[in-house]
Formats: sequence, structure tokens, C-alpha cells
Amino acid sequence: MDRLPGFRDFYPEPLPPTKDELWSMDARNYLFDTWRAVARRYGFREYDGPPLEPLELYTNKSGEEIVGQLFNFTDKGERAVAMRPEMTPTLARMAAAQERAYKKPFKWFSIPQLFRYEKQQKGRKREHFQLNCDILGEHDRAADAELVALLIDSLRALGLTNADFVVRLSSRNAWTELFASRCTDAAKSYDFFQIVDKLDRTRPEESAAKLAPLGFQLEEVQAFITSGQPNAELQLILNQLAARGLREYVRVDYGVIRGLAYYTGPVFEAFDIKGEFRAICGGGRYDHLIKQVSGGKVDLPALGFGMGDVVLLELLKSRGLLPQFTAGLNAYVLIEDESLRVDSLRLVQQLREAGLPTEFSLTPAKGDKQFKRALELNASHAVRLERQPDGSLIAKLKHLKSREEVVLAPSAVAQHLAH
Amino acid sequence: MDRLPGFRDFYPEPLPPTKDELWSMDARNYLFDTWRAVARRYGFREYDGPPLEPLELYTNKSGEEIVGQLFNFTDKGERAVAMRPEMTPTLARMAAAQERAYKKPFKWFSIPQLFRYEKQQKGRKREHFQLNCDILGEHDRAADAELVALLIDSLRALGLTNADFVVRLSSRNAWTELFASRCTDAAKSYDFFQIVDKLDRTRPEESAAKLAPLGFQLEEVQAFITSGQPNAELQLILNQLAARGLREYVRVDYGVIRGLAYYTGPVFEAFDIKGEFRAICGGGRYDHLIKQVSGGKVDLPALGFGMGDVVLLELLKSRGLLPQFTAGLNAYVLIEDESLRVDSLRLVQQLREAGLPTEFSLTPAKGDKQFKRALELNASHAVRLERQPDGSLIAKLKHLKSREEVVLAPSAVAQHLAH
Repeated sequence: MDRLPGFRDFYPEPLPPTKDELWSMDARNYLFDTWRAVARRYGFREYDGPPLEPLELYTNKSGEEIVGQLFNFTDKGERAVAMRPEMTPTLARMAAAQERAYKKPFKWFSIPQLFRYEKQQKGRKREHFQLNCDILGEHDRAADAELVALLIDSLRALGLTNADFVVRLSSRNAWTELFASRCTDAAKSYDFFQIVDKLDRTRPEESAAKLAPLGFQLEEVQAFITSGQPNAELQLILNQLAARGLREYVRVDYGVIRGLAYYTGPVFEAFDIKGEFRAICGGGRYDHLIKQVSGGKVDLPALGFGMGDVVLLELLKSRGLLPQFTAGLNAYVLIEDESLRVDSLRLVQQLREAGLPTEFSLTPAKGDKQFKRALELNASHAVRLERQPDGSLIAKLKHLKSREEVVLAPSAVAQHLAH
Repeated sequence: MDRLPGFRDFYPEPLPPTKDELWSMDARNYLFDTWRAVARRYGFREYDGPPLEPLELYTNKSGEEIVGQLFNFTDKGERAVAMRPEMTPTLARMAAAQERAYKKPFKWFSIPQLFRYEKQQKGRKREHFQLNCDILGEHDRAADAELVALLIDSLRALGLTNADFVVRLSSRNAWTELFASRCTDAAKSYDFFQIVDKLDRTRPEESAAKLAPLGFQLEEVQAFITSGQPNAELQLILNQLAARGLREYVRVDYGVIRGLAYYTGPVFEAFDIKGEFRAICGGGRYDHLIKQVSGGKVDLPALGFGMGDVVLLELLKSRGLLPQFTAGLNAYVLIEDESLRVDSLRLVQQLREAGLPTEFSLTPAKGDKQFKRALELNASHAVRLERQPDGSLIAKLKHLKSREEVVLAPSAVAQHLAH
């Protein structure tokens, strides 16, 4: 029996050569550990919610159309439920429930596994993990700068540089200002944004024809997109990024639209510079969403981003930036003389209690076979006990790379290895 | 809108006082980190599979009855699927798929979230996390000793001692031997095990009446249970635990049955000594299960245990063994003079790049308000820049517990804090 299509198995390294698509549990842990470490450096706190939520949580936010993309069902208690396709509704629910209990702004992150019933395509998954970082309760664009800085440092901590990725920064307000400069009928702004959002996918003549009644020429809209001129809110963000030495990672690009109906301020996406992959990350300010998703219960300005594991792991792999993962063994205890098994077990226990990953052969095996296994496992040291003529025990500790050997009292091995 | 019944929200510490049942994300991370660290010390490698699997994976193992306890449904591709209620079938599937690629024995662990549609009761959850540790491909009882030692050290690493918990060790083979000593009709052994399995829940006269035709008196079965006499396989395990200094954590108790039809050798459960909680952990040897679950594809001897987060977190809390969790901030950068914001942002960035969790006020605020926030967040230091008459900057770094202050060059703060 096979796993479901679009789902992944995560195996320990080294991954076997196989036609099946295997993912590395070690690489996933490395990514999550790095994400966590950087988020904590920025003072973000971790939360999590259930992977199964009331279906209504998602239809409230995105309308009934979303249901076609969900793993949803009716549970045994006749509840309409769905496996979470995104984290923002859960965040809104949780934040609304405890809004008064935490000091604002909330700086929260999570690494949920998310589920979408995607059409089956090569490389399209039905689940992925996503780093979600959000700031709730802060209007000031300093929060946007903080969030973009965190995004940049999350990627830099993985070894990516400004030769690898760029953050394209845009602004919903810049588009609003452009629209207002030409058209005073605010009711038509929705039409304008719809046309703009679809520019890439529409024939130029068609876009031009639709823009004309609103007072715009296609060329000037295109010129605006590529102008790279920051408006006031983007300038503030760029200044604060410059103060942090992160200016070179960001480019103003009004072509980043990200569903203008949803976002309310700055929006951004991170891309690999070679353009080989889908977006690494996307986010922005969504000041009205918490109110909407919480059913009007809580009204907090908010901004956030999501960064998925699939694209990022592919990018890191292609750039040779994934470390070589091993079991991280400090010691392999060789038991060449079965009369020393009890003493060897005592040594194994001492090493493990000292926090040192330690392995040994559970069953009797030839000495050279055990030594070979120690090498295969990439243990840093092999150690074996020997009984002296006077009945006492010594430990011979071999560093497997240099093959240098030291002789110690068994009780001194743990301390020696810990240094 | 509320979360689904039986599911948990995990919030950052400190948890607010509330009638709602909130769980601590920090405690969960502490538990997972400890589990991972100990498993790695024992040379176990981490894996994970999908939280959604084909329904058949579970009915193959447990029969159609299991379906009543599952979150199962038909997906949009007409597949019968279920949210995983346990990890062993996924492990068997994954191990069978890559059996030749990894050296045996496999020593693998995982921390999956598991789902059961349980009847709603106080304290009964519909999801929990579980540390699963398994050894595949080793017949020798040395593997059972290794696994029980890992179980013990997983609990000891959390601060629990032999005054808090005990591992009750039993043996399917001991029961088989007892049965064979009196009854030569092996076909009746299933009936015998069924009676034994239900002793606790059956009236004594009824049990006695059922045992008599098989040649047993109730009293001698009860005496066997409480005898505490290890058979040969348990003696070997006890000897190896004694060599590791872990003997005092284990008690032979044949009253631990754990579905005798499923396990094939030693079985065990860990309990809190006061008997206030359900079992902390349970496991044993299941030599035929991999073959059954993999549809005959792979036949590997196997053993494993599962340790849930709910009981364990409750136990740790009741024993005062959970650390006090904070944001772990090394520094709070005070910006009392807005003309120093750019320089302060540079300092914040330096500290974070040095790996030091650092917080600051995103917006202008009074100095005493910022200082109060630094104290609330339990930051270890507050630091602020000051401009000297000659235009240069100095950093004043205050240790918040001792209130001792040092004056440094801004570029020296990161190094000072890192030590």
C-alpha cells in the first residue's frame, strides 16, 4: 500500500537512491530549527492550533469557493470540518479569544502543516509546512520593516545571500493613490484593481480597453509598475531596513499585487533571483482581516508572511546549501569481548547520560564489522574497553578521522568526549 | 467561532488565567526537544509520514471496528482516507518501502500528532502528540533492553525519578509458558488470554468458572500475576538494565497484558507511582505486525513504544517539573531619544545577527514604559545608546536582575552579551 498522492514521507539521512520521491527528515528539522531560532531572535513567540478546524472558519474568510480546494468532511458529530489550508484564520481565532491577555503588539509565529486538495501536477503537493510570522496590534509601518527584516534574516540564516534572492516590495496604498490621482469615483477602484491584478494574464489590447474608461492608459500603468519609486510608507520601511544593513535585499516592484482586495498596505514576495522557482515567501498588511475572521469580535491591525518548506528546500538543495546530515554520533562503543558487555553497557550509559549520542552493537559481532559500522555511521570516535592483567579496565578511544588513539580510565571518557 | 471539541490551542507563556483550557506551546516545545535529544543520544533517527493515510492501512491492521474511532472520510478523488490514529502502520509502510536501503536494526523515532474520534469526556482529547520509538530487524532481547532504557531515560531527562514512575514489565511468552504447563491444547490459548485480559473487569466467580475447564484455578493465575518472577527473556532485559544502572525503575508485573493477541514477547507500561494518571507509556515486541501491515511484503521483528504528551505534561505540571518559560530575551534595546532610532536599529540587528534574542519598541514610547516592558518580558539586559558631546556613541548595558551597569562601545555589546 502506498501513501496518498501529494503527501510526503520524511526519511532519515542518508536518503537511499530510489525512484520514489523521498524527503529528508533531517533537512526538515534543520529548516524548522533555523526558522525557530531566527524568529526567537526577533522576539517572536510560537503558537499552534489544531490541524482540523470548523469549515466555517475558512468559508467566512474566503467564501464558499474555497471548499473546492479543501480536505473537508462531516465528522461523526455531524460537524462540517476541514483540514487547515492556511494558518491566518486559526491565528485570528486564537488571538481574538485571548486578545486582552497578551501585550500588544503580538509577535507570533508557527510552523503548521497545511493541506489543499490541489489538482495533481508534477511537483504540486497536497500538504506543506509553512513558517507563519505575524504581528498583530501595530499600525506603524515600523512593524512592516520588522517583519520584512525577519523574512530576510530567515533566508540569510540558511546561507542564502542577495545573490540568491530578492524581496519585491509593493504597496496597496500606492495603487490607491495612483487611482485617486485620476479617478474620483472610489466605487470604481475595485474594477481598477481587478484589471491590474490580471494584467499578466490578459491580452494588452483588452487591458487597455478596460483601463481607458477609468482614465488610464496601459503604458502609464506599466510604467508605474516598473518605476521602482517608493511611496511614503515604503520609504519608511526602506529607511528602517537600511538602518539594519538589509536595504540591498529589497526592491520596490508594484507588479507584486497579491490579491489587492485582501491586503491593506505594504505587500511583498521573496523570489530566487534566477527565477527558477515559485515564490519563496509572500505576505503583507491585512488590517481588516482579524475583524472579519473573528466575526467582528476583535479589530486589530495585522501583517504577516508565510514561507513554505517545499520551494525553500528545493532552492537550498539546488544551491548546495543543505548541510550533510548524519546521526551526529560522538561515540561508537566496540564490544569485541563479550565478557566486557556489562562494563561496556555501563560505559554506553555514562556517555549517553553526559548527553553524547552513542551507539553500539546490540548483539555479538566481529570486531572489524563493528568498526566498519562505526565508520558508516560517521561516528566521531570509536571506543573499546580492555581488561588489564591486574583486572582493571582501560578505555581506548580512537578519533576516526585522524585515527589518533588515547588511553583513558573508562570513567574519564565522557568528559574527554564532551570537550 | 470556537475550535473543535477535543482539540487544543497552544499559546505562548505566560498563559493567561482563563476558564478556557489553554495549552502551553513552550511546554510542548520543551517536551519535544527533550524527547528528541534523548532519542538521538540513543542513536535513534527521526522520520515522519503524512497525517492523512489510506483508510485501508488501519483496517488491515485493526479490522473494520477501528473505523468507528477514526476521523475518516472520502476525499475529492473518491479515496477512503483517515487522519492517522497511530504511527505503527505508517512506520510499517515506510520501512517496507525502503527496507533494503537502511542497515538493520532500524532505530527510528517520530513525534506525530494522532487523531481519534473519542467519546466526549472530561480530559479526553481527540488529538495528542506521541513519541514513537521503534527498533526493527532485531530478534535479540538486547533490543528490548535498549528500548526500555530509552523509555526510562526519556522520563528521567524531564526530571522524573524512581519516586515518580515505574516501568511494569511483562511477557507474552511467560503467559504462553504458564498455559502450556497445564494445557496441551494450544488452540485454547486464545480463550485463556481473553479471560486473563479481562480479569480486572470480570467478577471473580465468573473468571474462575471460565478458567476451570482449561485446568486453572483463579488463585494460581492471580498468584502468577503478582509473583514478580522474571522468566528467561525478562531476566536478560533486567540484567542489561542493571548494567546500565536502571534496574530500580523496573518491576516485573504480569498484570500488564496490553492485548496479548497483538504482542509477541516482552510488553511494558510506565505509570506514575501515585497512580493518579493513566499510563504514561506503553509498548512491547510485535514481531508479526510489520509483515501483516505491509501486506506480507516485508517480515521484520519489531518492538516499540508510544508516549503521549497529554498525560506526561499533566504529570510534569503536578510535580512542579516544568521550567518557567519566557521569551528568552538577552536584550531589550531602549530607544529614549528618537534621534538615535537608526543607530539603535543597527544595534538591534547586530545583536540578533550574533544569535541573541533582542526586542525593542517599534514606536516611540516613554523611557520608563520601555523599561517596564523589558522587565515584563524578563529580558536579561536592557541596553541604550547615548550620544557623547564629541558626537560618538556609547552603550549602557544594564543587567536587569543585579541592576549592574556597564558602559561599552556599541560594537562591543554583542560580544559582551554572548559571554
